[in-house]
Amino acid sequence: MKIGILGGGQLGRMLIQEALKYDDEFYTLDPASDAPCHNISYFTQGNFNDYETVLNFGKDKDVVTIEIEHVNAEALAELENQGVKVVPNSQIIKTIQQKILQKKFYQKHEIPSPEFEVMDGSSDEIKMSLPFVQKMNTGGYDGKGVQVIRTNEDMKNLWLQDSVLEKLVDIDKELSIIVAKNENGETKAFPVTEMVADPKLNLLDFNVCPVDDLSEDVENQINVIASKFLSAVDSPGLFAIELFLDKEGKVWVNETAPRLHNSGHQSQEGNANSQFEQMYRVVKNFPLADTDAIVYSGMLNLVGAEGHAGKVIYEGMDEVLKMPETYVHLYGKTETKPGRKMGHINVLADSREELMEKLVKVKEMVRVIAE
Amino acid sequence: MKIGILGGGQLGRMLIQEALKYDDEFYTLDPASDAPCHNISYFTQGNFNDYETVLNFGKDKDVVTIEIEHVNAEALAELENQGVKVVPNSQIIKTIQQKILQKKFYQKHEIPSPEFEVMDGSSDEIKMSLPFVQKMNTGGYDGKGVQVIRTNEDMKNLWLQDSVLEKLVDIDKELSIIVAKNENGETKAFPVTEMVADPKLNLLDFNVCPVDDLSEDVENQINVIASKFLSAVDSPGLFAIELFLDKEGKVWVNETAPRLHNSGHQSQEGNANSQFEQMYRVVKNFPLADTDAIVYSGMLNLVGAEGHAGKVIYEGMDEVLKMPETYVHLYGKTETKPGRKMGHINVLADSREELMEKLVKVKEMVRVIAE
Repeated sequence: MKIGILGGGQLGRMLIQEALKYDDEFYTLDPASDAPCHNISYFTQGNFNDYETVLNFGKDKDVVTIEIEHVNAEALAELENQGVKVVPNSQIIKTIQQKILQKKFYQKHEIPSPEFEVMDGSSDEIKMSLPFVQKMNTGGYDGKGVQVIRTNEDMKNLWLQDSVLEKLVDIDKELSIIVAKNENGETKAFPVTEMVADPKLNLLDFNVCPVDDLSEDVENQINVIASKFLSAVDSPGLFAIELFLDKEGKVWVNETAPRLHNSGHQSQEGNANSQFEQMYRVVKNFPLADTDAIVYSGMLNLVGAEGHAGKVIYEGMDEVLKMPETYVHLYGKTETKPGRKMGHINVLADSREELMEKLVKVKEMVRVIAE
Repeated sequence: MKIGILGGGQLGRMLIQEALKYDDEFYTLDPASDAPCHNISYFTQGNFNDYETVLNFGKDKDVVTIEIEHVNAEALAELENQGVKVVPNSQIIKTIQQKILQKKFYQKHEIPSPEFEVMDGSSDEIKMSLPFVQKMNTGGYDGKGVQVIRTNEDMKNLWLQDSVLEKLVDIDKELSIIVAKNENGETKAFPVTEMVADPKLNLLDFNVCPVDDLSEDVENQINVIASKFLSAVDSPGLFAIELFLDKEGKVWVNETAPRLHNSGHQSQEGNANSQFEQMYRVVKNFPLADTDAIVYSGMLNLVGAEGHAGKVIYEGMDEVLKMPETYVHLYGKTETKPGRKMGHINVLADSREELMEKLVKVKEMVRVIAE
């Protein structure tokens, strides 16, 4: 089968890597000539935001999917008209792309998400009380396009653009649940993952799975959210639902990604099957894979160190490779720059304590620097 | 790093698949334009037995390795002279390619291997008593170039060519141990695997790992063989040592492959790391990976059914994909023919009994046929 992917980054690369177990041809579209997928798929250099480019790329494929949601959804809708299967479909991509539509989707389907109001370019009529979060309607990505407005002073910084103003949640934990639905309507969820901050080390980028200290009530809330979402979403797809657990024990949907997600990377070794296998099965409308957590698994991102730009070196990697139950995943990027996601490391352990110790140890071992 | 692989078949494909976790460029050489590696590496169509072709392919690579042993070893020796790293080195490839040299290697290093004599084109002076096995000196592969001579009548069929005549072993079990050695001299072995025959179903192609009914004495014999082999072999590499356990409880080396091997496929999901990860680490001279068996794992080959040639269909695959702890690996081959290895399926279980049941069940479910 000819499978086209909009985006040729690491998510696409790991999807193709997993799918090499099967017999398909992968085609990728990305503006960067050295995108992580460029040398492991039939690669087209081009802009996935451009209507004509996406249409031309997709028209001879059996299925078109995405590894980034900021793509031209109109072109995907036209491909659907022309009989190309698009997974997830253009409608849900459009809904999730636009924060206003996304919030209205939660509202309509009674999926708990923080109280919000829509701001359409003027701050004159804001009713939301401080503090609140402003999320740009479109273009937000990796923390960009989001700001917290805490004080009247902060109000000066308000973006005078279409956006969502959201009540600030008093966060106890940041959680994520990855769910999948195939064309036959079969659904499956991965175990809940926690994005852990280590207060001592001020580290924010560990994933830990499963999360074993959630109350039954919290687990129920999450299950209800996952199940409402999967009923509401009228499309096959794999979705990462990012959640806030607040200090009162209430779970809120922060936002949803209609694609593979950083919060699922530890599933590569930690679960019976990975999010990448599951995504592949969704794309093919295969029976969904079992997602059981075999052990405790965790992930840390390998991010370009401050002050380093150029040809990448992974300092300390030799020591990491000596550690058992430790799995290095690099993304085929030759150039590092500060904050660039260059890879990740997954770690397995028999308890959460052991896992956290290992993650902290690995984090201290390795640095992403330039030559 | 530029890594060149002689051969572009499934072993190369699965090596590259695993190594996509790291940042290297893979180049493959294979005579078939649609070889399994052709669309996931920089591919050269050409003959890996041809001196000039191999020399040209290898000269600009950082490392050259193999996924098949029937390659031009003289060209590899010349590449070594020119400063290209060859893993495993040309000397051990040459030794293993030629059955006579291979047997002498075992003899020299006191590695137990069945009694033999060399036949050089004439049957006049054979001392070996019947029954015996004749193995052609070169060119044997996948059971070809090997025959059993049981009776005086069979003697008519003797190949009058350079070959090894080997005492026939009264086999209780066929076993395999995959061992690895890196350039630093670090060594590691995988748990022993058994190639199981199911007498009821006349099935010969299950791997089962680990093997838990070996006596301590047998385990010791295997450990001694592995350790003698690793000391004797003056090259980095990953090697599959195929063993016979005879009915008297004595272990013999049947033969060794200087490469990734069918008997290690279940390590993809059954072990902490797979043979492919280990091979990659050998090629890079990285610290070797842990090889612990997590659970019981087994493999069955997906082989083209008799009477079917043409575009492949995997009949029953949808049912297989519904089974938990079951992992399908296809090799990207579009055309099936009788006996062609098209893929394999790995299965995990908590006991050997459960594993065998699952393997038999899966085997009965799926058929490799043509459209």
